[in-house]
Amino acid sequence: MGWFKRDNNSAKVNVDALFLGPKSENQGFFTNTLNFLMEEHIQWRRDFHPDDKPAVSLEEQDEQLYKDTLRRTKETLLELSGKLKTTSMPWFSPRYLGHMNSDTLMAANLAYMATILYNPNNCAFEASPATTGLEIQAGKQLCTMLGFDANKGWGHITSGGHVANYEAFWVARNLKSFPMAVKAVLPNLVKGLDDWQLLNLPVSKVLDLVDKVKAANKFDEVRALSARGVGMSKENLGVLLVPQSRHYSWAKAADILGIGTDNLINVQVKDNYRMDVNVLKATIDKFIATKTPILGVVAVVGTTEEGAVDEVHEIAKLRDEYEKQGISFYFHIDGAYGGYARAIFLDENDKFMDMHKMKHRWHEEGIIHKDIDWPPIDVYEAYKAFSEADSITVDPHKMGYVPYAAGAVVMKDRRILDLISYFAAYVFEKGNDPMLLGSYILEGSKAGATAAAVWASHEVIPLNITGYGRIIGRSITGAQRFYMSLKAEPAFEVNGKKYIVHPLTKPDFNIVDFAFNAVGNTDLAKMDDLNEKLYELSSYNSGPVYANDWITSKTSLATDAYGDAPASFVAVLGIPKEQWDKQKSVYVLRSCVLSPWLIKNTTYNEYWGTFLKIMQEKIGKIVKG
Amino acid sequence: MGWFKRDNNSAKVNVDALFLGPKSENQGFFTNTLNFLMEEHIQWRRDFHPDDKPAVSLEEQDEQLYKDTLRRTKETLLELSGKLKTTSMPWFSPRYLGHMNSDTLMAANLAYMATILYNPNNCAFEASPATTGLEIQAGKQLCTMLGFDANKGWGHITSGGHVANYEAFWVARNLKSFPMAVKAVLPNLVKGLDDWQLLNLPVSKVLDLVDKVKAANKFDEVRALSARGVGMSKENLGVLLVPQSRHYSWAKAADILGIGTDNLINVQVKDNYRMDVNVLKATIDKFIATKTPILGVVAVVGTTEEGAVDEVHEIAKLRDEYEKQGISFYFHIDGAYGGYARAIFLDENDKFMDMHKMKHRWHEEGIIHKDIDWPPIDVYEAYKAFSEADSITVDPHKMGYVPYAAGAVVMKDRRILDLISYFAAYVFEKGNDPMLLGSYILEGSKAGATAAAVWASHEVIPLNITGYGRIIGRSITGAQRFYMSLKAEPAFEVNGKKYIVHPLTKPDFNIVDFAFNAVGNTDLAKMDDLNEKLYELSSYNSGPVYANDWITSKTSLATDAYGDAPASFVAVLGIPKEQWDKQKSVYVLRSCVLSPWLIKNTTYNEYWGTFLKIMQEKIGKIVKG
Repeated sequence: MGWFKRDNNSAKVNVDALFLGPKSENQGFFTNTLNFLMEEHIQWRRDFHPDDKPAVSLEEQDEQLYKDTLRRTKETLLELSGKLKTTSMPWFSPRYLGHMNSDTLMAANLAYMATILYNPNNCAFEASPATTGLEIQAGKQLCTMLGFDANKGWGHITSGGHVANYEAFWVARNLKSFPMAVKAVLPNLVKGLDDWQLLNLPVSKVLDLVDKVKAANKFDEVRALSARGVGMSKENLGVLLVPQSRHYSWAKAADILGIGTDNLINVQVKDNYRMDVNVLKATIDKFIATKTPILGVVAVVGTTEEGAVDEVHEIAKLRDEYEKQGISFYFHIDGAYGGYARAIFLDENDKFMDMHKMKHRWHEEGIIHKDIDWPPIDVYEAYKAFSEADSITVDPHKMGYVPYAAGAVVMKDRRILDLISYFAAYVFEKGNDPMLLGSYILEGSKAGATAAAVWASHEVIPLNITGYGRIIGRSITGAQRFYMSLKAEPAFEVNGKKYIVHPLTKPDFNIVDFAFNAVGNTDLAKMDDLNEKLYELSSYNSGPVYANDWITSKTSLATDAYGDAPASFVAVLGIPKEQWDKQKSVYVLRSCVLSPWLIKNTTYNEYWGTFLKIMQEKIGKIVKG
Repeated sequence: MGWFKRDNNSAKVNVDALFLGPKSENQGFFTNTLNFLMEEHIQWRRDFHPDDKPAVSLEEQDEQLYKDTLRRTKETLLELSGKLKTTSMPWFSPRYLGHMNSDTLMAANLAYMATILYNPNNCAFEASPATTGLEIQAGKQLCTMLGFDANKGWGHITSGGHVANYEAFWVARNLKSFPMAVKAVLPNLVKGLDDWQLLNLPVSKVLDLVDKVKAANKFDEVRALSARGVGMSKENLGVLLVPQSRHYSWAKAADILGIGTDNLINVQVKDNYRMDVNVLKATIDKFIATKTPILGVVAVVGTTEEGAVDEVHEIAKLRDEYEKQGISFYFHIDGAYGGYARAIFLDENDKFMDMHKMKHRWHEEGIIHKDIDWPPIDVYEAYKAFSEADSITVDPHKMGYVPYAAGAVVMKDRRILDLISYFAAYVFEKGNDPMLLGSYILEGSKAGATAAAVWASHEVIPLNITGYGRIIGRSITGAQRFYMSLKAEPAFEVNGKKYIVHPLTKPDFNIVDFAFNAVGNTDLAKMDDLNEKLYELSSYNSGPVYANDWITSKTSLATDAYGDAPASFVAVLGIPKEQWDKQKSVYVLRSCVLSPWLIKNTTYNEYWGTFLKIMQEKIGKIVKG
């Protein structure tokens, strides 16, 4: 597709060259390219009807008020720059291991900046002839990465993972209500099926019905009788099952879509923070017994707090088994966080690799260090089974290393589009599909610059082992090393007192949760207090982070979200079970290791040494009070 | 608030100095400032722990694969730049009078670019210590501009007008369902009120109830029984009334929120394309008669197709009258397009000005030309009455001249927040309100850069007569002039045949719809054909717009959205009534005049002359076939 002779699938990227870098290592390239792009735009304006007179003469530019206004603009921007420098988080540095942030790609940042002055709006093709195409292309690239057929699937950019999840559930809701609407208008098409069967048609069968209804020229009429038209008041569309480790965006989704949070059912997680598939099965059985339909099931790939990867393959298997029994549900993967990691499993032809061959390549090519034992078989199988889902949320602004705000949702079967599509006379003309994005998505106006940023990133960095796989590999290596270092660390002394540190669990992905405790302390509240104070000293709470040596985030793991999963972790830190049973929550530090710099031995060792020293100093400060 | 000594409320801006300009007139300032801001960021990275080793050595930067990756990045960006230049719309030029687009503010573009490398996420304060504050401040500025008390109200940035509208209706829906939930948990608080009365409590009374429920420590329990928890299945919350000229985002809203498009009721518009308040009243009466509650009423300020301004003051009066009769509804203004224009009605102390004094100032200070008769009294009163609404949608990326994607929603009473708020353990801590945006809004992750762009624009350009009023004045002047020129234009000859052009209606705001017809033609289909071909020749449909002399947009006005409103317009163009009655739609060209350059006499006359000549040439081409 590209302009230049380059082969996206075999060229390998050098990850070092992709970021501005913690010491602005690539500042020369960055600045030169930015200036070139700006000059291109400036001249583009001048070349549009070159003989048109300027709107502002040089004489007018000499007026005092004119100069005052420019000065005022500059002052405001300097004030902004000052504010940004005072309190912004140094995502770029390996000293920041907190939220899902890191340096972002030069390709993405420069593409965004190059596009901003053209200001395309991807709501309508007419307002974005260049960038709507880039969004469609980026959507197809995501389809392929996530295991869907790019010609049958559909993907687009959203403002974030929240909106992507909303859109998937919106589809699920309207889809679930469609067969009953067919019964009302074209009963012959669903002859012999009772209401329960209609509420349990597999997704593909509902979409076949959509085709038949269209062929009978009754689509608008039927669609108006689905949840879209009649609202959520008529039918009981059932319950949405999500892992207990749930992200709050699902509760918002259930609320917003009129499903109600009462119909959002949490399924218990196991000790490894993955949804317990046996409990999922029991939950489904319980609802079926009361003739409550299952509207949808969500698997999370990369939970926000632990990076746990739900067993997608097991859930897919379960879905297939239920379908044989006449029970069906919509299956969505929330891969907002972990979705991009599928790139590391794909060879240069975007084929999912055999485990053994894959690991061999990773080690040979330095993508993941030999000393790292990853992935667990269930994580491997989970990523492999992505293609079994009906839709997937994936955020370019997380593991895509693209700046905010860039989420995405990808659907396996593009026929779902008409369940949620709308047309406005002035923007859309039927038939021009699929270039009229605003009519097929939850949002309307949207920055073409975001699409340009995502597209440019995908062009430079193929979504497989040659490109993104190499960034992901660095992140995984850094995280797993951090986990191993924490696990191996013996008790250490601060001011004559001994302390230990322990990681929560071996990460499925790249989040490492951990906690410190004083040796001999058996009081959970005291342990929490220590870690809370450590967080305070490692965050904006103790003053400007720019002056901080090490910055992290934190979370609380409580029984309402995790059952007794954290009990064994607390035990390793020397806290008796009674304490856990009483308090039912534990405070942990949380490091998302997105940094691409912790793969080099020298860099890793430097930062691990620094980390230990800093944490000991911080404990020293806390103890002194 | 600012860093520098400057008085936001009395300094006047020079609009010429705000934009890069159609001939890149301000390229020197733009480039210098951008370079300075980039250098600031680059050095900021270097100054964070200056003794940390670089992540990439100069030796590593010399490797072939490293250089290949940089080359690949550059190639991709050049390809992007090429694509952008080939097909982007020249919004910056007065030759573009189509969609709601124009050049955007340098302050906004530079602020966005300055912020992008810091990549703050305004979902959580911890991820955006600098820019969350800017968003809160921008929200307060919008409150003041729109007539709300900034200390009692609440405003924030959204990804666009769609999401802003969804959020307002989400609030309306959860609010409407709250009193019935109170009855179930704390019946004493609503003693003596029957269900109909509970479904008709005024918004402020519902919010007082929220306070009482909180005082009784039962808020979570009650909220869980509102639509949020139980979904839309339990209660009939009634109907949403919107003008027939409706934007398709409302249908999407009704669908998404589980209200159902069946409950979205279109109220007929008058000849001037404003909602007919008498019909609104009759519609409300009809629903009341069947005991169907009115969930909400929407006024549009600046319809998408005609820029019509609904009579907000009349609707507010109606609401007050109904409240006396025990009937109440949520009142939302969709000012996505026209909202920013309220700035031109405010003096330097943000007070709504007296009509006479205001016009005098406009003419004296050259804000609106003396020869322009604007605003009509109803438009003036409508803007004045904004403070009567419960919430308002307003898009910085439209008349705020900020790049995409930047919408906003503003609420009169911040107590509504808890009807839609959510907390996630790792992001939010109660009590830190209002800095934890993601817990109070529909979206989650969002670019802090957008907030910086909006804030910087508001800092440079006060939201009153000294600032935005001056930009709006230029837009209005350009639009009204274009209208007057079209109206005054006598029949003209092309290839020996006579043609006329006529504007649809005197614009309430800055959109001019118009159509051409051959003198003597009485066939509506033929007239439509002429205008459709003119559009084709004035859009991307006839090849790259960069080579086009004049670019516009178009729309169709049909009876399903407009009743017989367009009939008189068609008549003026020589089409008999029977033709309208038969075809029931008319094709028009549509020019949103956002360009700030058509206020200068020489510039206006130049472009009007150019326009006429170009349209005559295009008609010539069409006639020749």
